[in-house]
Amino acid sequence: MTASPDQTSSTRLVISVSLDGQREEADHLVVEAPLEIRMGGVPLAVLMRTPGSDIELCRGFVLSESIVLGPHEIADIRLAEEDPERNRWEIVLSEGVEIDATRFQRNVYTSSSCGVCGKASIDAVRLTAAPAQRGPIVTAQQVSSLSDKLRNGQATFEMTGGLHGVALFDAECQLLALAEDIGRHNALDKVIGGLSRQMWPLSNTILMVSGRVSFEIVQKAAVAGIPMVCGVSAASSLAVELAEELGMTVIGFLRGSDFNIYTGAERVQG
Amino acid sequence: MTASPDQTSSTRLVISVSLDGQREEADHLVVEAPLEIRMGGVPLAVLMRTPGSDIELCRGFVLSESIVLGPHEIADIRLAEEDPERNRWEIVLSEGVEIDATRFQRNVYTSSSCGVCGKASIDAVRLTAAPAQRGPIVTAQQVSSLSDKLRNGQATFEMTGGLHGVALFDAECQLLALAEDIGRHNALDKVIGGLSRQMWPLSNTILMVSGRVSFEIVQKAAVAGIPMVCGVSAASSLAVELAEELGMTVIGFLRGSDFNIYTGAERVQG
Repeated sequence: MTASPDQTSSTRLVISVSLDGQREEADHLVVEAPLEIRMGGVPLAVLMRTPGSDIELCRGFVLSESIVLGPHEIADIRLAEEDPERNRWEIVLSEGVEIDATRFQRNVYTSSSCGVCGKASIDAVRLTAAPAQRGPIVTAQQVSSLSDKLRNGQATFEMTGGLHGVALFDAECQLLALAEDIGRHNALDKVIGGLSRQMWPLSNTILMVSGRVSFEIVQKAAVAGIPMVCGVSAASSLAVELAEELGMTVIGFLRGSDFNIYTGAERVQG
Repeated sequence: MTASPDQTSSTRLVISVSLDGQREEADHLVVEAPLEIRMGGVPLAVLMRTPGSDIELCRGFVLSESIVLGPHEIADIRLAEEDPERNRWEIVLSEGVEIDATRFQRNVYTSSSCGVCGKASIDAVRLTAAPAQRGPIVTAQQVSSLSDKLRNGQATFEMTGGLHGVALFDAECQLLALAEDIGRHNALDKVIGGLSRQMWPLSNTILMVSGRVSFEIVQKAAVAGIPMVCGVSAASSLAVELAEELGMTVIGFLRGSDFNIYTGAERVQG
């Protein structure tokens, strides 16, 4: 395989089959490679990601997973010294910040008094995410523009057809940040991490994802303070329940001028 | 919300927006809820899944993640006693089987001599997955039939538009098992877990997924012994490299009569 200059795709000979027969041709594949996030030399997570915006990914991951409580707790993100392959990154905490390991356990329900159910999952997010601020108020026409704006920005998708795209917009639906990745959560962490250098929390932004609106997408948005989440595909029951609980807006099946508002319709006026 | 009898979807009033204006209508949402897998009373994992086929999901997860080395190591899968919500399941191991915790660490690269890179990821899978057996040999026409067969079996998708579908076929491309879930890995684990009662490893089967062919999809297939993986969307670079290394077949962009063979073309003849 031959990698593209930006490392997000590689070229490979494939056999293309159709009713006209078979032929060998060059195809662009989306690149997937592991990235390890460390803190104090200890590995926190290994993500299978598309290379590119790695620092933003690390930053967004520790923010949206509530591992740090805000950008002020991050002093630096740098390559682990022994890593010539640029896949192992160290989060350097700000002076005086100590991370309590129990704070990583948001998704683990071990105490016998805590049930494993949607309610418990929502309660766990409420421990780390505040109710949504009022945020943007937009028109239906503005919402309708978001899917095209996302798709137009997806350069590698055009080539490989294999990447999730995620974009953040301001209250006027102007593009603030866009990222692509083979993993939907990674793409979201990249835009959160990138934009968090300029603003935090992201209370005056609108999120648009190329796929489904799942619980974890709304969870990461909630922790970042994003009050409005839109997706090209369906929303799940628990995603909508969490958004409702926190006063967020969820829009699904957003394709051109058509979309469904699942909760938080007060942010779409006119 | 009102749940469907099979609990995979729930009904909710949404605001449907189009150029004709807005109207309130009932929409079917795919259900998402946490499931905890325990072993010896200790939580192994919490999965956000669509309820249904929960035992198959638990079974497939511990098999495809190499937590157990085969169905013979599983004596029973039953509700944890304190769980009236049916979301917490206990894997009971066969007599004499002891699980070594280090075997869960397949995805963790902590030793300083081990790089974090695609090569290391592939090597890690090779520790738990044997090279693929020869398995099915099929015609291009048979391959072409798989996407329709998968879609025709996806009952909840039709209603909600929100579920990944995964199917396993035999060497004649007849459907053996099909599952839907909001999580693509869960849907795969459900079909692996279900079919593993009748056969293991699944060396004479063909896998078809509704989305992308990522590294983790090929990894789970490899551990289950499935030699051929097809997807409606793109395959990633590392997924293809792993499949090539293990002698598996990867087919992408399988839509009706058109598809691309990325590696292992010897299993498609005529």
